[in-house]
Amino acid sequence: MKVVPLGSRLLIKPYEEEKRTSGGIVLPDAAKEKQMTAKVIAVGEKVEDIDVKENDKVLYSKYSGTEIKIDDEDYIIIDQDDILAKIEG
Amino acid sequence: MKVVPLGSRLLIKPYEEEKRTSGGIVLPDAAKEKQMTAKVIAVGEKVEDIDVKENDKVLYSKYSGTEIKIDDEDYIIIDQDDILAKIEG
Amino acid sequence: MKVVPLGSRLLIKPYEEEKRTSGGIVLPDAAKEKQMTAKVIAVGEKVEDIDVKENDKVLYSKYSGTEIKIDDEDYIIIDQDDILAKIEG
Amino acid sequence: MKVVPLGSRLLIKPYEEEKRTSGGIVLPDAAKEKQMTAKVIAVGEKVEDIDVKENDKVLYSKYSGTEIKIDDEDYIIIDQDDILAKIEG
Amino acid sequence: MKVVPLGSRLLIKPYEEEKRTSGGIVLPDAAKEKQMTAKVIAVGEKVEDIDVKENDKVLYSKYSGTEIKIDDEDYIIIDQDDILAKIEG
Amino acid sequence: MKVVPLGSRLLIKPYEEEKRTSGGIVLPDAAKEKQMTAKVIAVGEKVEDIDVKENDKVLYSKYSGTEIKIDDEDYIIIDQDDILAKIEG
Amino acid sequence: MKVVPLGSRLLIKPYEEEKRTSGGIVLPDAAKEKQMTAKVIAVGEKVEDIDVKENDKVLYSKYSGTEIKIDDEDYIIIDQDDILAKIEG
Repeated sequence: MKVVPLGSRLLIKPYEEEKRTSGGIVLPDAAKEKQMTAKVIAVGEKVEDIDVKENDKVLYSKYSGTEIKIDDEDYIIIDQDDILAKIEG
Repeated sequence: MKVVPLGSRLLIKPYEEEKRTSGGIVLPDAAKEKQMTAKVIAVGEKVEDIDVKENDKVLYSKYSGTEIKIDDEDYIIIDQDDILAKIEG
Repeated sequence: MKVVPLGSRLLIKPYEEEKRTSGGIVLPDAAKEKQMTAKVIAVGEKVEDIDVKENDKVLYSKYSGTEIKIDDEDYIIIDQDDILAKIEG
Repeated sequence: MKVVPLGSRLLIKPYEEEKRTSGGIVLPDAAKEKQMTAKVIAVGEKVEDIDVKENDKVLYSKYSGTEIKIDDEDYIIIDQDDILAKIEG
Repeated sequence: MKVVPLGSRLLIKPYEEEKRTSGGIVLPDAAKEKQMTAKVIAVGEKVEDIDVKENDKVLYSKYSGTEIKIDDEDYIIIDQDDILAKIEG
Repeated sequence: MKVVPLGSRLLIKPYEEEKRTSGGIVLPDAAKEKQMTAKVIAVGEKVEDIDVKENDKVLYSKYSGTEIKIDDEDYIIIDQDDILAKIEG
Repeated sequence: MKVVPLGSRLLIKPYEEEKRTSGGIVLPDAAKEKQMTAKVIAVGEKVEDIDVKENDKVLYSKYSGTEIKIDDEDYIIIDQDDILAKIEG
């Protein structure tokens, strides 16, 4: 199954290095911040304001976009305006 | 009876694989998420920002659009801006 | 008396198949939904985004437009943006 | 004294067929609805979206515009967007 | 001292025929309405939507603009959009 | 140290004729009104809607802009839209 | 690791001359104001309204932008509209 983002949207996959504990244990801030980085999976045809491509690592705006599940993995469909920066190196 | 969406709207038919129980039993999250996928039935003449056509399977934004009933089946009339992605394969 | 909608507005006449009971009896959902269909009576000169003409049957957005009474019958003056779809056949 | 509406505004005079009782007696709905019709007294120079002229009878949107008194009579200065329809015949 | 309104603003001087009582006595409506008329003192260079000039008597929208005091007299700096009409004769 | 306002902003210095008392004593209205006049210190490159230059005395909109301190003196960085008028003479 | 701001955003690094005390001690106003100055680290490709470049010292609007941590140091990704002024000398 392939999800093709439409218009000015992108499909991104948040990095999951940190573990979310299921019993309600609060993680330190450092761990939570990691959740704002994601890998670009697909770029919509009308994404013209930002220069990103597949596999780029990006920083995105918290609480933006729509979370979806593909093959039991978490992804986000997000507008180009909510991608803040590209992370290189 | 045929419903022709006007302007930048589409007529979509949500997939109904999951069963809604009538006695108030809450379904698991996985089932509820399915409700955000739909088949495109008709595309308005001014839909220009997204590239979808009849029979495409799409992902749409929850709580958007207007629910209608045609021949006792549920459909949604929805603006192109609320179609998030196309699902292929 | 003739009412000519101005700008991008239309004059529509809601279908009244269902009966509203005066004693406060609640009608089933199916009946209420019918109220969202209307016949187009007149089209304003600046209606350009949607392709409808007199006598078309349309679906309109609930709670939109302004209700008026002409010769004791109910009509709605409504903007083209609130006409969702055309119903054919 | 002459009031010349500016920009995209019109000066209209609501029809006053119904009587407002001063002692707090509520009038039937039919009477209240009449208050939404008015005669066009003057049309601002930038009124371009609607086709109305002096002496036209129009239907206007309730609660819009600014009420003013000229020679002890009630008038409304109202934007063209709040004129819904022209009434003919 | 001369105050030159900037952009699309005007400097107007409200007519002060009515007296405001300092002890909290409420004035009749007729008196209060007069406060919405003003004389145009100066017109900003970008006032292009309305056709008014110095010394014109205008009707302005209540609660709009910024009240200022010049040589102990009250004036208002107001945007052209809040000037409703010109009063002639 | 020099502060260069960016875009459509200006750097202004409010006149300080009136004294603010540090012990919470309320000043009369006349004194407070003075705070709305300022001298223009610098004009951003994209200030195009209003015709002001360095050393002009202007009237600005209360509560707008961002207060900053340069060499222990109070300044305001303010958008051109919040400069109401120029004061001459 | 390099963070490249996208669109009309910049990456800035707030100056940290003042010390934030961890035990809840409130710092004087002068110290807090310093936090509104930052060094420009990187400028997005669509930053066109303001004239700033790497290493410029800028004044930015409080509470705007998104705080991020790079190699354990605090940075802000901020839109060009929230950069108020450039500080020279």
